[in-house]
Amino acid sequence: MQRGIFITFEGSEGCGKSTQITRLGETLKQTGKRILMLREPGGTELGEQIRHLLKYFHTASGMFPETELLLFAASRAQLVREVIEPALSEGCIVLSDRFMDSTTVYQGVARKIDASTVETINAFAVGSCLPELTFLLDMDAEVAFQRTLRRPRSLDAPKDRMEQEPLSFYHAVREGYLALAKKEPKRIKIINSERPVTEVQEVIRQTLHEQVHGLFL
Amino acid sequence: MQRGIFITFEGSEGCGKSTQITRLGETLKQTGKRILMLREPGGTELGEQIRHLLKYFHTASGMFPETELLLFAASRAQLVREVIEPALSEGCIVLSDRFMDSTTVYQGVARKIDASTVETINAFAVGSCLPELTFLLDMDAEVAFQRTLRRPRSLDAPKDRMEQEPLSFYHAVREGYLALAKKEPKRIKIINSERPVTEVQEVIRQTLHEQVHGLFL
Repeated sequence: MQRGIFITFEGSEGCGKSTQITRLGETLKQTGKRILMLREPGGTELGEQIRHLLKYFHTASGMFPETELLLFAASRAQLVREVIEPALSEGCIVLSDRFMDSTTVYQGVARKIDASTVETINAFAVGSCLPELTFLLDMDAEVAFQRTLRRPRSLDAPKDRMEQEPLSFYHAVREGYLALAKKEPKRIKIINSERPVTEVQEVIRQTLHEQVHGLFL
Repeated sequence: MQRGIFITFEGSEGCGKSTQITRLGETLKQTGKRILMLREPGGTELGEQIRHLLKYFHTASGMFPETELLLFAASRAQLVREVIEPALSEGCIVLSDRFMDSTTVYQGVARKIDASTVETINAFAVGSCLPELTFLLDMDAEVAFQRTLRRPRSLDAPKDRMEQEPLSFYHAVREGYLALAKKEPKRIKIINSERPVTEVQEVIRQTLHEQVHGLFL
């Protein structure tokens, strides 16, 4: 059976990843392809437990950046081997909301953890399972910051990790992603996502069509 | 204030680590020193949650060796920064039941994960917090294997990770530890732990006395 395609979505909080991944998923389903949509951290029973630990301990007591990076990597190591690789072997198109580039940017650039260490740990976690194509949903850091602040949440819910970050963090994240896209222009496609949702959706569809032959979009 | 001392205990399951660490802790308390006894994985609220995940998912569904290594490292990264470093700064003697050498041996040697990757991840997790002294409780692999099998546990309790391992795993673990001790003879002291408990206890006390001046044992 023909191996599936692994596509990831990256970008700052508030950039519209989950909207676009849902829309692309629906478009692809209409072609009759088998689609698997994932989110990180999570996507496996163990990964969802790790996701919970990341949220809970970040709010409750303080988690060190090294711990955070290793937990993201653990969740990803399990996701790759338990879910992504088997799905690709069965010919699925796998769409993931965040993957290893998030670690490179969030822990490496924004939390300033040594780049070569991040690279080693990323490579160890994902093995040979690299995305064929990555959509970087790019927008002005201040716009993303404001969009995250305006997100609906219940009044008594604690702020999550990203909602606690200052604007400077959003700038560092954006710069980190753009630098990464410059290093890997073949894999990482920068999508201006300040435009209306349907326009962004169309650009993604078109880019996918150009990059992956035989998808018949 | 004078910095404390960090001492770790290593060795196969069944080698008597927890007995000896308890006895050394009691001996040291009599000298009036402040003692902190830890176990790995665990030792922090987050680390205990990770310990639970390691046990539960190993039994319930299958955890990949890469995931396992990263979870151990995450627990350790938190333990070092939240507990061990502050305790050493306050002059405590910290005794840990397992530390980074367990990852080198269990994940590196016995699970055959690339040695330099294990080394990078270990170094990242512990930072500059290295044990001054490590007691390797060494015994014949078959003796350790039989002792682990004979451990009391409730009849309906599932076998834990180590109880599921074959004798060959115990051989690999022992060889791994002995090779590590050969590489770092100054830090790692091999203690023959097939002898009676009180004799092993006395050898540990004597070795500590010789290695760490000013402990007045």
